Amino acid sequence: MKINKKNYRTIWLDPIDNNVVKVIDQRYLPHKFEILDLLTMSDVYNAIEDMAVRGAPLIGATAAWGVYLSAIEALSKNYDVEFIKQQSLNLRNSRPTAINLEWAVNRMLSTVVLHEDLNEMTKALREEAKAICDEDVEESKAIGMSGLKVIKEISMAKPNQPINILTHCNAGWLATIDYGTATSPIYTARDSGIDLHIWVDETRPRNQGSNLTAWELAHEGIKHSIIVDNAGGYLMQQGEVDLIIVGSDRTTKSGDVCNKIGTYLKALAAFDNKVPFYVALPESTFDWNIEDGLKEIPIEIRDEDEIAFISGSIENRVERVKVIPDKSTCLNIAFDVTPSKFITGLITPRGICKADKASIQELYPEHF
Amino acid sequence: MKINKKNYRTIWLDPIDNNVVKVIDQRYLPHKFEILDLLTMSDVYNAIEDMAVRGAPLIGATAAWGVYLSAIEALSKNYDVEFIKQQSLNLRNSRPTAINLEWAVNRMLSTVVLHEDLNEMTKALREEAKAICDEDVEESKAIGMSGLKVIKEISMAKPNQPINILTHCNAGWLATIDYGTATSPIYTARDSGIDLHIWVDETRPRNQGSNLTAWELAHEGIKHSIIVDNAGGYLMQQGEVDLIIVGSDRTTKSGDVCNKIGTYLKALAAFDNKVPFYVALPESTFDWNIEDGLKEIPIEIRDEDEIAFISGSIENRVERVKVIPDKSTCLNIAFDVTPSKFITGLITPRGICKADKASIQELYPEHF
Repeated sequence: MKINKKNYRTIWLDPIDNNVVKVIDQRYLPHKFEILDLLTMSDVYNAIEDMAVRGAPLIGATAAWGVYLSAIEALSKNYDVEFIKQQSLNLRNSRPTAINLEWAVNRMLSTVVLHEDLNEMTKALREEAKAICDEDVEESKAIGMSGLKVIKEISMAKPNQPINILTHCNAGWLATIDYGTATSPIYTARDSGIDLHIWVDETRPRNQGSNLTAWELAHEGIKHSIIVDNAGGYLMQQGEVDLIIVGSDRTTKSGDVCNKIGTYLKALAAFDNKVPFYVALPESTFDWNIEDGLKEIPIEIRDEDEIAFISGSIENRVERVKVIPDKSTCLNIAFDVTPSKFITGLITPRGICKADKASIQELYPEHF
Repeated sequence: MKINKKNYRTIWLDPIDNNVVKVIDQRYLPHKFEILDLLTMSDVYNAIEDMAVRGAPLIGATAAWGVYLSAIEALSKNYDVEFIKQQSLNLRNSRPTAINLEWAVNRMLSTVVLHEDLNEMTKALREEAKAICDEDVEESKAIGMSGLKVIKEISMAKPNQPINILTHCNAGWLATIDYGTATSPIYTARDSGIDLHIWVDETRPRNQGSNLTAWELAHEGIKHSIIVDNAGGYLMQQGEVDLIIVGSDRTTKSGDVCNKIGTYLKALAAFDNKVPFYVALPESTFDWNIEDGLKEIPIEIRDEDEIAFISGSIENRVERVKVIPDKSTCLNIAFDVTPSKFITGLITPRGICKADKASIQELYPEHF
C-alpha cells in the first residue's frame, strides 16, 4: 500500500544484497518513517520481541526470513544444520500468542529437513520465505473480496450514507505484508466506490490504532476518526457503527478469537447493540489443535513500562513521557479472547463463515 | 484524605481571606501538586470547564462557591442581584452532563431569593456553600458504610485473600469533597481491616484513573495496579475481579447511570462474567426528572486535543506530546450511559438498592 504515494510492502529482501531483509520499523510511526535492516536471526528475534514488526501475519513472515538469515549465518560461519534448527525453535519464544509465528517456523523447518547441502537449503529457504510473503498477500487480497460482500450488503441497506466501520488495534497492511486483514475489505470497498468512514480505536497501551491504523488510512486517503478505546460502546448505542472488523492473533477451530486486549469488550457491545462483529484472518492464524480459546491460548504479559510511558512528538522531536504516579505499578496484558458466541462471522480468504466448528470445517475440511 | 500524610479536602474557603476559595488543581496531578485560588465566578467557570476541578460532587460544590464569589463581586462593584442570577445560570453551561452542577446552582439560587440585602445574602450563601460541602462529606461517609456491607459479604466468601475491586475513572475523594463515592467503601473497608487490591482503569483520554485514582490510593497506602481500559474484560473472564464500583455523573430515577466514557463496556463484561457491578452516588447525582438515560442525558463532546495530546513527566518537567498522526482527527465523547439492567445495585448514603424505579423510590420516596 501507499506511503506518500509510493508503494511499499512491510518486509522485503534487499534486491541488491540478498543477505539483508528490510522491514518498516513500526516502533517510531507515525512520528518517524524508518527502514530497519535485519542481518541475523538475532536481529529478527529482537525486531519481533520489541515490536519493530508486529501483527500476526507479519510476525510469521518475519520469522520465515529469520530462518533464512540463520542459514546464511550458518553458511558463512561453517555451522551445521543444528544451529538453524536451534535458532528457529528458540525464535518461537519471542512472542507467545500469535500462532503465525509457530506456523511459519514449522513450515520453514520442513524445508530445512529436505536438504543436506547448506547452499541449496539456503536457496530453498529464500524461496520459501518469499512464497510465505506472496501467499500472505494473496490471502489478504482474497479476504478483501470476501469482506466486500458484507460491506456491500450494508451499503445497499443504507444508500447515500457513509458506512461506519469500527476497528481495534492495527490489522492493517502494516500487520501483514500488504492490504491487511481487517483493512483489506475496507480498501477493497473503497476501490468499489463505497463511501466509508472508519472509527479507529486508539488501542492502549501501544496505540497501534492511532499510531498505525490512522496513519495508514490517512496515507490511503480514507476518512477516519480516532476514538479512545472507551468510546465504541457509546457509538454503538447511538447507531453510529454499522460494522466492526478486527484481526486475530490466534483463532481456535471452534471459532474463539484471540486478539489485541480490548477486542472482547467491543464484541460484547456489538452483541448488545446488534452490530455485526466480524474477524478477518488468513489460514495461518487458525490454531487447528485447540478448541477452547479461554483455556488454551497463552496470553502474553508485556512490560509495564508500555503503560507507564508514552512516546509522542513535540517540536519535531520524539519524547517519551511518564504518565503514571511514581508510586504506582501496572499490569500489561497484551491480548484477550472473544468467545465465538459473540462473533457474527469470520472473513477468510475462502469466504465468510460462522464462528463455529462445523462452519469452519466446511471452509477448511483438510484440517479436520 | 491524606497527601503526604497531611489531611486535605478538595475545596475550602481560605480561613484568613474569606474572598478566596481554594481548590487542589487537578490538571497537573500526579506530576505537580498545586493549589488554585478562585476569586470570581469567572475563575470558577474556567476551573470547571478546564477541569482543574472535576467529578460530579466536586463540580457541584465548586459551583456553589461560585455563586458565593459572584455575590462578593456584586457587593464590591455595587451590582444588583440580577448579576448573581445571570452568572449562576450561565455557569450551568460550563459542563452539561453532571447533574450536580445544576442541583447546586439551583440550591444556591433558592438562598439568593430569600434575601433582599446583599450583605446578608452573601453571608447566607457562604453558609449554604459550606453546608453543601459538609453534607457531601457526610454523604460520602455514609456511602462508605453502605458499600462496606457489599465488600464484607465478598470477603466472607473469600477468606484470607485480597478482594479485587475494579474502578473506572476517578470517583475518589478528589471527585468529591472528601472520601469519594466509589472509593469511600474502599477506604472504609481498609479501615475495617479488609485486605484489598484495586484495579485502576487508566481512563483515557484524560487518564483520571492513572493520574488521580492511583495517586490518591498510593497516598492512602492502598495496593493497586493500573491497567489500560481494554484489560478489565480479560481480568473478569479470568476471575480476577471480585467487584466493580464506579461513580456517576447523573443517574435517572429508573436507575440508568451516566458516567465516564467506557463505564458501559465494563458493565457489559461484568454482566457476562457475573461480577457484581455497583454504582456509588450521593443524592445530588440523581436526576429526578428523567427516566431514560440513553435518550434524555446530554453527553458532553470535549476538545479532540484531549485525545491527540498527552502530558507526562520527563526529567522533572512536564511535557505535552502529540500521540496521533498529523493528518488524523479525533472524536472525544466524555460520557456514556449504562442501562440499569446491567447494574447490580446502587450504593447510596441511605443504603443499597437495586437500579430500578421501585427500589430507588423506596430509599427516596420524597422525590416520587
